[in-house]
Parts: sequence; structure tokens; C-alpha cells
Amino acid sequence: MAVYTEVTDEALRHFLASYALGELVAFRGIAEGVENSNYALKTEAGDFILTLYEKRVDPAELPYFLGLMDHMAARGLACPVPVKGADGEALRSLADRPAAICTFLPGVWPRRVRPEHCGPLGTALAAMHDAAGDFSGSRANTLGPSGWLPLLNRCRGGAMPAEGVFEELSTALHQVLEDWPRVLPVGQIHADLFPDNVFFLNDGKTPRVSGIIDFYFACTDLLAYDIAVCLNAWCFEADFAFNVTKARALLAGYRARRVLSQAEIEALPVLCRGAAIRFALTRLFDWANTPEGAMVTRKDPMDYVRRLRFHAAARGPDAYGL
Amino acid sequence: MAVYTEVTDEALRHFLASYALGELVAFRGIAEGVENSNYALKTEAGDFILTLYEKRVDPAELPYFLGLMDHMAARGLACPVPVKGADGEALRSLADRPAAICTFLPGVWPRRVRPEHCGPLGTALAAMHDAAGDFSGSRANTLGPSGWLPLLNRCRGGAMPAEGVFEELSTALHQVLEDWPRVLPVGQIHADLFPDNVFFLNDGKTPRVSGIIDFYFACTDLLAYDIAVCLNAWCFEADFAFNVTKARALLAGYRARRVLSQAEIEALPVLCRGAAIRFALTRLFDWANTPEGAMVTRKDPMDYVRRLRFHAAARGPDAYGL
Repeated sequence: MAVYTEVTDEALRHFLASYALGELVAFRGIAEGVENSNYALKTEAGDFILTLYEKRVDPAELPYFLGLMDHMAARGLACPVPVKGADGEALRSLADRPAAICTFLPGVWPRRVRPEHCGPLGTALAAMHDAAGDFSGSRANTLGPSGWLPLLNRCRGGAMPAEGVFEELSTALHQVLEDWPRVLPVGQIHADLFPDNVFFLNDGKTPRVSGIIDFYFACTDLLAYDIAVCLNAWCFEADFAFNVTKARALLAGYRARRVLSQAEIEALPVLCRGAAIRFALTRLFDWANTPEGAMVTRKDPMDYVRRLRFHAAARGPDAYGL
Repeated sequence: MAVYTEVTDEALRHFLASYALGELVAFRGIAEGVENSNYALKTEAGDFILTLYEKRVDPAELPYFLGLMDHMAARGLACPVPVKGADGEALRSLADRPAAICTFLPGVWPRRVRPEHCGPLGTALAAMHDAAGDFSGSRANTLGPSGWLPLLNRCRGGAMPAEGVFEELSTALHQVLEDWPRVLPVGQIHADLFPDNVFFLNDGKTPRVSGIIDFYFACTDLLAYDIAVCLNAWCFEADFAFNVTKARALLAGYRARRVLSQAEIEALPVLCRGAAIRFALTRLFDWANTPEGAMVTRKDPMDYVRRLRFHAAARGPDAYGL
């Protein structure tokens, strides 16, 4: 949750003058999203989200992210659509930061995931892969396999949440890199599709996905790796027990929309190990680099080490309900 | 900025079933307000704010706060109106906390105060005092003069932002308590009317107040003390220079709506000293009780000690442009 940058009303009014959105009605910081400053913006034209891109985001990559959203929305995906100004540009500058206005999506992200969320989630993920299928841009996955060993090495010597964690991750990572699949379908992936990035509406009896947001980790990588991220993020209970009912629903939902090849299915366990390592490592990096006694809630890397252990023990894709 | 409590979608839907607001459309945490958890809630009936009252708020006092808003809104003040459920109640429980839904107010709070804001602010403050005039409830000001000496004493021995601050505040406080006026008009005051609690719209050439929010410090105390809080919060520049143009506009705006007695005018310097001490003390308390090295932005008590020095040097109400 984050608003890092304050925007003066004069600067905001000047910024809005580039758009045909009518008069400003309201402007409130949103306590969601951890990397950028997000505001709920209401004008005479309706509801929007204004994002100021903070330092983690490389401005050179913004055209990829905004272009991807624009492309997918044009193909019918419910994702934020960058709003263009009178000059045809969606990306401009506000309070010395790159800034863009996107459309507002209805819906609520599930604070507690139920199996009924997982089928629609899988279908929405496949629809996203499909909608991005003919997108011409590409972006390397900086938090993909080639980044994991350097990241692990930057944690060396820092504070650790438990004895032997560094060694456990190091051993598992070397094995994952050795087993990593080389020839699976590649495309644009979300790479961070956690529950707080998926909005649902309950207009019928069962939840329906009303939007996918936060494409600022999106990149060009193995499509099935996105499924592995979701299996990690959506299918474990609070006690780290794997819920195979959720996984089965997620995979069935995905396959209802896009065919998974046999090679992709076979690769699920190693992709899941890799995804667990990826989130364990970024958390471990923060852990190792947060001063003792800091009043900041550090996310526990062990949550993903525990997931990794489940995946490491999986004998094959049937561990995921297939 | 604060969202302390997560609300599951099941709990939210169950909660909303007590209201006639139609289906849930969206629900996002707001990064404003420091004491409670606030959410922007959108339903088929429109936009609302859902507040969960966190531990600083005494549940026994909520009927006063909600009743006051209800009363003032009925008299035409643009403030949040508590929404009643089918049972006629505005206050109920969600996620184990007291919770209420209020109406959404348009407008944007001024990140940078200009003199044009101060006239409308003064008039809105007087309108608030007026609208609350016949409210039957009352609440003692726990952060008023009788609370200042105990608060100062709880800072004793803690970390100080500068040499001699404790002694300076102690001396000034004893003088303020001696000089404090005893017979000025009393009513319901906001007691915390900082710029982030006042929304403006710019539909004409000049800003107009579209709403006053956050009545959770409201109490029964000297009406002119509310003016003194505003003079402190709105009329100093970033370098702590007092801007008499802003003060003059604020006071003229107030007097256009409510008559200030000669006694209230005469009391402004001591009321301003008291208000500066009140905010210096709560900041000093946080300063004295925050662990060294904590990664939390402590607000500097010296900001209000500097204001206090201006007020202490004021020879009379003409220092405020009267």
C-alpha cells in the first residue's frame, strides 16, 4: 500500500488539461499496489486510476507495459486501458515522475481465496495469454531464471529468517536451473498474478473475473510459468497445505480456454519450484537488507520455502490434480 | 495513510446485506486518514466511504461523532452523512471492529494552501459551528488544556528533537494555562481541521469548499479554539513564516458567517499558543516514544514549537491581520 508522491492541485489541474475528461471531481490516494503511487481519480467523465511511476519502474519500459494493456484491452481483456490525451499520448509527466491515467475496473480482489475463484482465474489467465498472443513488444524477465542466482548471491551474509535457508535455496535453485525447460510456448506473461491483482464480481451465483491489474512485472517468458506463479499464489492455505481442489479448478479453467501441451504439463513441477524460489528470493533479499529493529513488516521468505518443499516432493503433474 | 484491517469479501457482502445499497461494485483501501481504516466503496447506489474504527477511537464515543455528522448534514453542512441500514442503525460491526458507511464527498484537499482557500475555509468553519449549534450531544476535549500537562509529563525523559524543548514547552504551557479564557462561546468544534480534512472544488474562478471530513477529534470546547487550530494549520509557510494574508482571509471568511465577539478576538493569541502546544505535544509524545532507528517518519514537534514562538511574540489580535 503506497502513496509516495503528493500531487498539488495546480499540477493536477494542469496535467488533466491534456485530456478530454472534463472537470476534476475527486482525487484520493489508494492504499494498494506497493511499487507506484496510485490515486482514484474521478472526473466528469467517470472513474479512473492515476499512477505515478516510482523509482523501481524503469521509464524506458513503460511503453511496453502500457502498450501491452492497450493491446489486450483492444482484444477484449478486462484490464486497465491507458487513456490517451489530446496529443494521442498515454504516458506523460506529473510531479517529476512518469504518469498515466488508466480506466477504472469494477470488482473486489478476494481477501480469502475460495475454490470457486480458481476456475475463473485460470480462464482469465489463458484469456490474457491469448489476448497478448500477437503483441509485437517484448521484455526480458529480469526476475526470471537468469536473475535468480545473482539475486541469491546478493543475500549472502545478510540476516536469515532461519538456519540453513540460504543453503536450502542454493541447492534447490541449482537443481531448478538444471531441470528448467528449454522449449515451451513463450509469450507475454503477467508474472505477478496474486489475488490482489484480480478483481471479481459476484453478479451470479459464482464469482466472475471483472479485471486483471498491475502489469508492471509483465514480461516475455514461458506461458506455463504464469500458471506456476498462480499455483503458488492461489492454491496454498494459510498453514501452507496445498489445496489440490483449487489447483484442479485453476488448471481446468485455464485448459477450457487454451490448450496446455504435454510438455507444459510435464514441466509444472519444476516451474512451480522456480516460481516459489523467485518469491522466496525477493523476500529474502528484503529480509537480508532490512535494518534490525526497523518497524517495517517484512514478508517472511519461509512462506515460499515451505511451498518449494511441497513442489520438490511432487512426483509429477498429478500432484496438481491433473 | 492507513488500511489496518483487511475485510474478506464474504464479510463485506454480509455487512452490506444490512443496507439498501444494491450490489457491490468496487472496494479499495484509501491511503488517507491516519487513525482508522478507510475504504472507497462503490455499489449500485453510488460512491461511499466505509470506515473501520481502530483502537484509538473509543467505541462509546462513536454515537457522538456519527450523531454530530448526521445533525450537521441535516442542517445543510457538506460533511459525510452516516448511512443507516434497514434497521435504522448507522453503526454496526465488521471484521471485529465498529464500522460505518458514510456518503462520499466530491473535492480535493489542497496539497499547497493558497490565500484563496482561506476565506472559504473560514466561512465553512463558521457554518460548521452554526450547524452544530443546537446539537444536544457533548464530548470533553481529551486533547484540550486539561490534557496538556499530563501529556507533557509523559514525554519527560524521552528522546527530544532539540536541546531545551521540554523546558520551553513547559514554561509556555504553564503561561497558557494561566492566561486561558474562561468565558467564551462554547459549542461542537472539529479540533483537527487541517488541509487534508477539507475538500475543495474549483468550478468557478475561485475554490469553493465541497466538504469537511474526519470528525473523530470533534468535541465540545471554545468555538474560537477551532479558529486557532486553523490559523496554525493553514497560515504558516513551509519556512514557518506566518502568512498574514491567509490569516486575514480566514478570519474575514469566518466573520462573514458568524460574529466573533470582542472577547474571542482578544483571546486569539493565547488560543493560538494553546493550539500550537497541543500539536507540539502529541508529536513530542510520538517522538519520545519511537524507538531509535525505526523506519517511521516522525513528524517534527519543532514545526509547532516554531509556530508557538510566533504566537508568543504576538502583541495582540492584530498579529493575525485584524
